[in-house]
Amino acid sequence: MARPTPLSGFPEWLPDGRIVEQHVLDTLRHTFELHGYAGIETRAVEPLDQLLRKGETSKEVYVLSRLQAEAGDRPSSSEKQLGLHFDLTVPFARYVLENAGHLAFPFKRYQIQKVWRGERPQDGRFREFVQADIDVVGAGELPYHYEVEVPLVMAEAFAALRAVGLPEVRILVNNRRVAEGFYRGLGLEDVEGVLRQIDKLDKIGPEAVSGLLVAECGATEDQAKACLALAAISGADATVVDEVRSLAASYGAGNELLETGLAELGALITAAAERAPGVVVADLKIARGLDYYTGSVYETVLVGHEQLGSVCSGGRYDTLASDGKNTYPGVGISVGVSRLVSRLLSGGLVRATRSVPSAVVVAVTSEETRAASDAVATALRARGIPVEVAPKAAKFGKQIQYADRRGIPFVWFPGTAGEDGTPGPDQVKDIRSGEQSDADAATWQPPAEDLWPRVVPAGA
Amino acid sequence: MARPTPLSGFPEWLPDGRIVEQHVLDTLRHTFELHGYAGIETRAVEPLDQLLRKGETSKEVYVLSRLQAEAGDRPSSSEKQLGLHFDLTVPFARYVLENAGHLAFPFKRYQIQKVWRGERPQDGRFREFVQADIDVVGAGELPYHYEVEVPLVMAEAFAALRAVGLPEVRILVNNRRVAEGFYRGLGLEDVEGVLRQIDKLDKIGPEAVSGLLVAECGATEDQAKACLALAAISGADATVVDEVRSLAASYGAGNELLETGLAELGALITAAAERAPGVVVADLKIARGLDYYTGSVYETVLVGHEQLGSVCSGGRYDTLASDGKNTYPGVGISVGVSRLVSRLLSGGLVRATRSVPSAVVVAVTSEETRAASDAVATALRARGIPVEVAPKAAKFGKQIQYADRRGIPFVWFPGTAGEDGTPGPDQVKDIRSGEQSDADAATWQPPAEDLWPRVVPAGA
Repeated sequence: MARPTPLSGFPEWLPDGRIVEQHVLDTLRHTFELHGYAGIETRAVEPLDQLLRKGETSKEVYVLSRLQAEAGDRPSSSEKQLGLHFDLTVPFARYVLENAGHLAFPFKRYQIQKVWRGERPQDGRFREFVQADIDVVGAGELPYHYEVEVPLVMAEAFAALRAVGLPEVRILVNNRRVAEGFYRGLGLEDVEGVLRQIDKLDKIGPEAVSGLLVAECGATEDQAKACLALAAISGADATVVDEVRSLAASYGAGNELLETGLAELGALITAAAERAPGVVVADLKIARGLDYYTGSVYETVLVGHEQLGSVCSGGRYDTLASDGKNTYPGVGISVGVSRLVSRLLSGGLVRATRSVPSAVVVAVTSEETRAASDAVATALRARGIPVEVAPKAAKFGKQIQYADRRGIPFVWFPGTAGEDGTPGPDQVKDIRSGEQSDADAATWQPPAEDLWPRVVPAGA
Repeated sequence: MARPTPLSGFPEWLPDGRIVEQHVLDTLRHTFELHGYAGIETRAVEPLDQLLRKGETSKEVYVLSRLQAEAGDRPSSSEKQLGLHFDLTVPFARYVLENAGHLAFPFKRYQIQKVWRGERPQDGRFREFVQADIDVVGAGELPYHYEVEVPLVMAEAFAALRAVGLPEVRILVNNRRVAEGFYRGLGLEDVEGVLRQIDKLDKIGPEAVSGLLVAECGATEDQAKACLALAAISGADATVVDEVRSLAASYGAGNELLETGLAELGALITAAAERAPGVVVADLKIARGLDYYTGSVYETVLVGHEQLGSVCSGGRYDTLASDGKNTYPGVGISVGVSRLVSRLLSGGLVRATRSVPSAVVVAVTSEETRAASDAVATALRARGIPVEVAPKAAKFGKQIQYADRRGIPFVWFPGTAGEDGTPGPDQVKDIRSGEQSDADAATWQPPAEDLWPRVVPAGA
């Protein structure tokens, strides 16, 4: 077999990169659990007809077939055609319906899994990637305060990751009711059409968007100007609410829907200013997926890496799932873990302090006394210290080299018998400083920062 | 959407079942890391031609196609046909070859991922399931002592899981060199043929196997009897070595290959008797996949659940991977996590102490004072206590019911202002005992056993 080459769009990390990814995953999980989110995992596949319910994603789905089915016989009609899930929302909605009788609502869950999309791979856009989602789903109703909660949980997770070198994040929030209320107040009825054009602002600029609003959405020059003025409003405190309100007043566009949206947006910004100062920013041009979101919407950029796109997005949807009898509204937000980790690694932003878990290599004096080295390792592990035993009773220099190549800080030398037959004391060497001292496997402890590999800013 | 039904062969757990699975995964990971195994994760897909190199698995593979490719245009010839991996060994071998220049050998890795097989689902046999593998792979050579290490690492993980209700395990070990040496010593040259028949012992019994050895493998009645006598030997200490040696001597079948195998098997059993007494048993009828294993082989049964099949298997292979220039021998062992967890849950052997992470629900006195409840939650979380805030400022009875339905042990009541306007003290209630007392969010600590959900034997 010749040396294989990577598959474009299917990222894999070397062991030290995986330590970085694992740290991100552990931090997310710990934060989610501190907030009471229960972990679930769904199967990787869903019936194809369920995956295709949102038409626009049909091109992205990987369809499965069994090899022997290809060889001639078609899948039997009783066997549903399956595809790999392209997000964690569709499977979660199905899980909620399937298990509704066994779940307590409102149900808070997190889910960290791979998803697959058959898209053309680009920087930060993969065919296989890990998402980490939190959602809160209610039965029949879901209070607004969960729309405040979910971005703040993510803000807390990102704050924890700042310590290892994650750049600053900005969670950009908007509220669909504000946009819809404002447009309707202006007299524009094609709300989705307007949002679609506003969504293009970053790509084509305000002049082109203005032209499209007039040409495609039946707006007057003045209405288009108002829409652009709304989209230009942003800010990290509740004064944005006043700005929007006075803009609306100047166009005589105030109304109840707008006020409802502004009250919600204001509550989110006020809570965020207290609990995650500087992280959450109201940005009235965020138009994300507004065809199914019905309240708050979220996008997140890494400051200094804005061209990477959003690393954490979501929103409120009044109908996550429905079985005809019951409707389940929800609010959720999803981190693109692979996109984030890929930037942390390729951008040289973070590194692992070593590539293996072991803090210690126990040297082997001779293959005949390997059991003595194994016993030292067992004693250290019993106190939670990660240890491996040298592969060979080679010269000690080679055994130290074995540790050094892996970034393992300590080498342990079992005591050898002196001339009178009594065993000498064990010794442990810090191979970074060269310092070597007597040690007892029943009590010795490495410095806390050496116990496990850590993830640190690349400069550290 | 009507209520969906489960897909046969694709297991999913409710939140409390996932806590059990997560505990198993965390225990495995922690044990592997204590022994210095580095975690990696490989993509879910491999080129189909790589997956099909072992012919006998061809029927199991799920093949991927992109939906739009189905709609007419064939995948371009530059795009390789992809399938989902059916184990973690094939992807690991590919990973080793692809990254050999960046890895330090011997390379110890663990890998915990889902795999897929398009087989007919049965009890304990799934189409999607989680495996947890450890392997040690060398460049050019790999010392025997790693064949002793890998089952002992697993024995340690199983020992840790015994505390939560896992039944006793028996790790059954054999060595291909023993079988091959013995058969050749008897004068039987069709070693693989003999092993294939011996592998049927549990299913069809010794008489039928004896008949097949004579009919299919050219054995005499006497040779068949010797093969069955070898397969009948088992034991947890080094006396098995003597038993095999004297059996071989009685047939004049002793030879160098047999002695090499017996020395290895003896070393494994001796080490295991010391480090995992009673867990590892030599069983000379274990013939597992002996077409590519070349030394030790392992299978593991849950005592009292033998009909479930092996929950942890593996062995030594002289050629895990080869790029023509370099050969990479390895030894590995793999836990069938889904099979194990499915039995723990369906057999009512273990349970989680609650279905959500939260130890505390902070009650909300009125929606106007929700921020005060949020502040309590933040203060508790800052000290690592998992907390959620009640969904609604309902009557306290309903808020207690919210906690009770989820098994959350504590409800926290923020102090309300007295007649003179000064706030009263917060109180916390253990809803199991009904005991309620003053508490300070800056210092209160739940009992350690209530902090996180625990996994315990179902009777506990």
